[in-house]
Amino acid sequence: MTTPSRRDLANAIRFLAIDAVQAANSGHPGMPMGMADIAEVLWNDYLRHNPGNPGWFNRDRFVLSNGHGSMLQYALLHLSGYDLSIEELRNFRQLDSKTPGHPENFMTPGIETTTGPLGQGFANAVGMALAEKLLAQRFNRPGFDVVDNRTWVFMGDGCLMEGISHEAASLAGTWGLGKLVAFWDDNRISIDGNTDGWFTDDTPMRFEAYGWQVIRKVDGHDPVEIRRAIETAIASSDKPTLICCRTTIGFGSPAKAGKESSHGAPLGKDEVTATREALGWPHAPFEIPQAIGDAWRANDAGREREEQWNRLFDAYAVQHPQQAAELSRRARGELPESFAAAADAYIAKLQAEGPVVASRKASQMALEAYAPLLPELIGGSADLAHSNLTLWKGSKSVAGDDPDANYIHYGVREFAMTAISNGLGLHECFIPYDATFLVFSDYARNAVRMSALMGAHAIHVYTHDSIGLGEDGPTHQPVEHLASLRYIPHNDVWRPCDAVESAVAWRAAIERNDGPSCLVFSRQNLPHQPRDAAQVAAIARGGYVLLDKGARDGDATPDVILIATGSEVGLATQAADVLAGEGVNVRVVSMPSTDVFDRQDKAYRESVLPNAVRKRVAIEAGVTDFWRKYVGLDGAVIGIDSFGASAPAEKLFPHFGFSVDKVVAAAKAL
Amino acid sequence: MTTPSRRDLANAIRFLAIDAVQAANSGHPGMPMGMADIAEVLWNDYLRHNPGNPGWFNRDRFVLSNGHGSMLQYALLHLSGYDLSIEELRNFRQLDSKTPGHPENFMTPGIETTTGPLGQGFANAVGMALAEKLLAQRFNRPGFDVVDNRTWVFMGDGCLMEGISHEAASLAGTWGLGKLVAFWDDNRISIDGNTDGWFTDDTPMRFEAYGWQVIRKVDGHDPVEIRRAIETAIASSDKPTLICCRTTIGFGSPAKAGKESSHGAPLGKDEVTATREALGWPHAPFEIPQAIGDAWRANDAGREREEQWNRLFDAYAVQHPQQAAELSRRARGELPESFAAAADAYIAKLQAEGPVVASRKASQMALEAYAPLLPELIGGSADLAHSNLTLWKGSKSVAGDDPDANYIHYGVREFAMTAISNGLGLHECFIPYDATFLVFSDYARNAVRMSALMGAHAIHVYTHDSIGLGEDGPTHQPVEHLASLRYIPHNDVWRPCDAVESAVAWRAAIERNDGPSCLVFSRQNLPHQPRDAAQVAAIARGGYVLLDKGARDGDATPDVILIATGSEVGLATQAADVLAGEGVNVRVVSMPSTDVFDRQDKAYRESVLPNAVRKRVAIEAGVTDFWRKYVGLDGAVIGIDSFGASAPAEKLFPHFGFSVDKVVAAAKAL
Repeated sequence: MTTPSRRDLANAIRFLAIDAVQAANSGHPGMPMGMADIAEVLWNDYLRHNPGNPGWFNRDRFVLSNGHGSMLQYALLHLSGYDLSIEELRNFRQLDSKTPGHPENFMTPGIETTTGPLGQGFANAVGMALAEKLLAQRFNRPGFDVVDNRTWVFMGDGCLMEGISHEAASLAGTWGLGKLVAFWDDNRISIDGNTDGWFTDDTPMRFEAYGWQVIRKVDGHDPVEIRRAIETAIASSDKPTLICCRTTIGFGSPAKAGKESSHGAPLGKDEVTATREALGWPHAPFEIPQAIGDAWRANDAGREREEQWNRLFDAYAVQHPQQAAELSRRARGELPESFAAAADAYIAKLQAEGPVVASRKASQMALEAYAPLLPELIGGSADLAHSNLTLWKGSKSVAGDDPDANYIHYGVREFAMTAISNGLGLHECFIPYDATFLVFSDYARNAVRMSALMGAHAIHVYTHDSIGLGEDGPTHQPVEHLASLRYIPHNDVWRPCDAVESAVAWRAAIERNDGPSCLVFSRQNLPHQPRDAAQVAAIARGGYVLLDKGARDGDATPDVILIATGSEVGLATQAADVLAGEGVNVRVVSMPSTDVFDRQDKAYRESVLPNAVRKRVAIEAGVTDFWRKYVGLDGAVIGIDSFGASAPAEKLFPHFGFSVDKVVAAAKAL
Repeated sequence: MTTPSRRDLANAIRFLAIDAVQAANSGHPGMPMGMADIAEVLWNDYLRHNPGNPGWFNRDRFVLSNGHGSMLQYALLHLSGYDLSIEELRNFRQLDSKTPGHPENFMTPGIETTTGPLGQGFANAVGMALAEKLLAQRFNRPGFDVVDNRTWVFMGDGCLMEGISHEAASLAGTWGLGKLVAFWDDNRISIDGNTDGWFTDDTPMRFEAYGWQVIRKVDGHDPVEIRRAIETAIASSDKPTLICCRTTIGFGSPAKAGKESSHGAPLGKDEVTATREALGWPHAPFEIPQAIGDAWRANDAGREREEQWNRLFDAYAVQHPQQAAELSRRARGELPESFAAAADAYIAKLQAEGPVVASRKASQMALEAYAPLLPELIGGSADLAHSNLTLWKGSKSVAGDDPDANYIHYGVREFAMTAISNGLGLHECFIPYDATFLVFSDYARNAVRMSALMGAHAIHVYTHDSIGLGEDGPTHQPVEHLASLRYIPHNDVWRPCDAVESAVAWRAAIERNDGPSCLVFSRQNLPHQPRDAAQVAAIARGGYVLLDKGARDGDATPDVILIATGSEVGLATQAADVLAGEGVNVRVVSMPSTDVFDRQDKAYRESVLPNAVRKRVAIEAGVTDFWRKYVGLDGAVIGIDSFGASAPAEKLFPHFGFSVDKVVAAAKAL
């Protein structure tokens, strides 16, 4: 073998995938075998990246939305020279390998986003392409296209069947993301078999309906056709492109090509042998002939690309020093130096002034205070801007070409919104927030989970946080949502009780750069709580003593502890007044974030909730069982374990047992 | 006024909506004002219903997918003669009224399904239309179209932006649901304002891509055009129809028509007056002139319709007595008489035989045992039939016209699948089950919630229930899902530990006709547990004593209680052996359904978990905090509070602390 053919190069992918799946005795060979030719052309001829520096700022983004084909991506990363050894490929799907079953952005160099939950990778890519567009219109200057990269996505039939593909494609079309190119692996096979029985959409027509450029009927095994399609895609500046690639799943397998049997299981020893023969690949497993390895390796070209860009950026920095500094700061993920002091001052001012507002209003006030300092803050709402209160004075829509664009009208698309947030948050230079009613976090739930799994810096704003929203009734009244969101690992949920806690929660979410925060706000007004400076500082610890009150002044040991969040903190303090009046030493703990509180050291937690004090009442307008972790078997919980009802909020709270009398009675019954 | 005009009739809707929203001081007048003319034509000229009997079997189904316009539906129900008084309309959005903020199927006669969470009503309607198609092909005979009704849906821009609209429309097109007719309220306004900035789809083209008949550019305020469109829709037998109605939101309001300000807030007193003048409606609020009331009332026509159908059905019963009896049984929601005994026998046989299988396999075995008795059982999976094991020998696809069709290939569409299940479950004659991996219950989560809120008889099958699925890794490994599903009110979650519990869980789900069940199964094999007959019977109570073991035989008081579910029950029994060997009296409680257990009487719960025994260890491969409700502050929980990892299952369990040693150590440390 002297000069490898394109097919040879593609077969290197195929056999790395085949053999790794065979070695792991689990995995998905069919997709890598089917998309190898497309991937080969894209990566060798078009993808602008630097394997030696996966974090190069101006790299093209590559997203494998059909993430079960992870071995395709691992093969590409290995072959092109990323820090992913052949040993790692041999250890596919083994504990602590860099080659898990689905691509994980936090495990493997060169993986932009974790994929596997179908359709979300595509939506992440829309977020990344939007990021590029916004950075380009903000920072590029004549002669200095310092931001100039494409986002390439592979997606399968499964991604296209998922509802999120509709939401994300619609937005990409509306925004005219010309540098977004999606390859549809049109192999007519999904896990259940031939898709004729359940996937009869005219997908090209559907994407045209979204305003995409659609390139039909590309032979996904013909490099010439693939190149031609990519050239057409690149020529589009104002429309995203869908390249419809007819492929054969399990391409090359004599017995399993074109069949679902190649999708999600090893080919089997005999069929691996037969496929080797059929494709003319005599090499041993994990052995890549040198000529093929050499042809793949992209380290030199990548280094040169980055160096060329570095020269461009250096010249840009001379001509446009302020922009260059700002872009660099944002790319490093550093907040402006002024932010911390400004936040301190704002929070102290709020504590002094004590506004009585709905916490959703307090959220908007926090935006007004913080956002002018943070051009990286980009937000939006799923068609509830005036309910979620996500617009602030400096909000400018991303729909046009305003260099300061920072507001996204997502329409009624909660799932894509959240996955797009994840894409923005994974991309350098942005801190995204999205918003809907708390109850509709359900629609986006797996994307919230993915924020947490990926450690994406994303802020999910959820207003109308309980039965307190009133008349819209049980379909709109979250009951189980706070607890359910808190149970997502690595997700920080905040439910502030007043404007001060709201400002602290926003600050924590902005400063938390390795994971998501859910900020949960009320529709209705909430009273302001008095605090000293130490208490204000303690809010950031997630839970703190808001009030110690009782007959025995100076005796720090409470008889009873009332633990509450959000709108129920006011109720707790009222009940505490009554209890104290009756001779009870009572403590009120405000617990805006159980997640953050649980991370505090043991001594602090003990100082707030002394283990010896077991007379505890938790109060939250949500499911009660969650609070057993703080009140145990012998405490009491005032909450709501049924669906809500449609009525004015002031009727609903007493109807569902949220009253001073009930809290006092519960405390005294312990 | 002698003979009211069509506009007069429509204005009756408009002012009931305007005045009720004004009285409630909250609500959505714009949509009822915009869709009143369409609704008037549909209800007065086409809808085949009987206001005197909202449950008439062969009625047309009407679904208001844009449920925030609930006053439209309440006005229609009131005017046409349903048992919904003008007093109820005056009490719009008040506690205990039959007119909650969004239509609730369990509160108001004539409401087929609860709507409000956008897009789901549309998907419910697809389920209902599928139900009609399947019943017709199963039961109709020449000359006896005893099943013959249409499903009409109103939907707004919001429904169409939601991803679920893609999934549901795609399936409706694939299935050729010719009796499904959707009206798109194309008013170009959503809450954030004019949709130009965020909803630029060519929706007619999109629906054509799904194989729908699309009728474009209908003037939604012109009864002649509306009638013509409906006639065209009715003429289609093999395609669902989308009627694209150009409307003006808030039609008739001089200041607010065509503006988002009419969408979600009362018009305001002055604007109500101005609208009265503009539309020529001098009548007082809630006053309907007699001629208009008379023209609307449909009780006589409805009664005649039903009586005519009764005559048809009586004749059918003479000619086809078996079919008529079967259809009647299914319509009453009664299981076949033979079912209970057959289930008893099957469960007893399993207990005796003790198969060691994955519980997903046990689920399929239960289907093989029960489904032949239950033609009402209709199932499917989101492209995971061979993973979820949802096919049984009698499965026949609904894609064709097989009279025994009972299996739905949903494709990768978890959300629509679940909402379609809800539609099937709300419709007479079906017990639907759907299936995906447990982790992807997230994609469908709000539809599961809606199952529970509506009391829909739907069975959600979730396999691959923990880190036990192994190599697919954290994106596919549910951790927080069991707890989160249990927190949905009125939802019964089951996680069986072996084939016997799996069969009991399936039976409970089939017999529970007023709410949903989530059946959660393992990928991997689970050991069989020995039980006596009383223990077998106790499984149905959700939690029971599986094992009392210890040095002090005959002493019923346990020192330690181990509580476990599913795959961790086997671990608990192994740990119990070790503890007993060390002289500890140990109890193992198997808790397949905490929801069901929590509903048992106090004495039973005390007999299983004596309050005095506080040395308790809960073991479940999911988040630990959930179990604090059973083990309190002083017990221990062996669980997993982080995301999982990609590796073979047998490596993962010990890696995450699931081992006999860890359980024994935790018990001894108490």
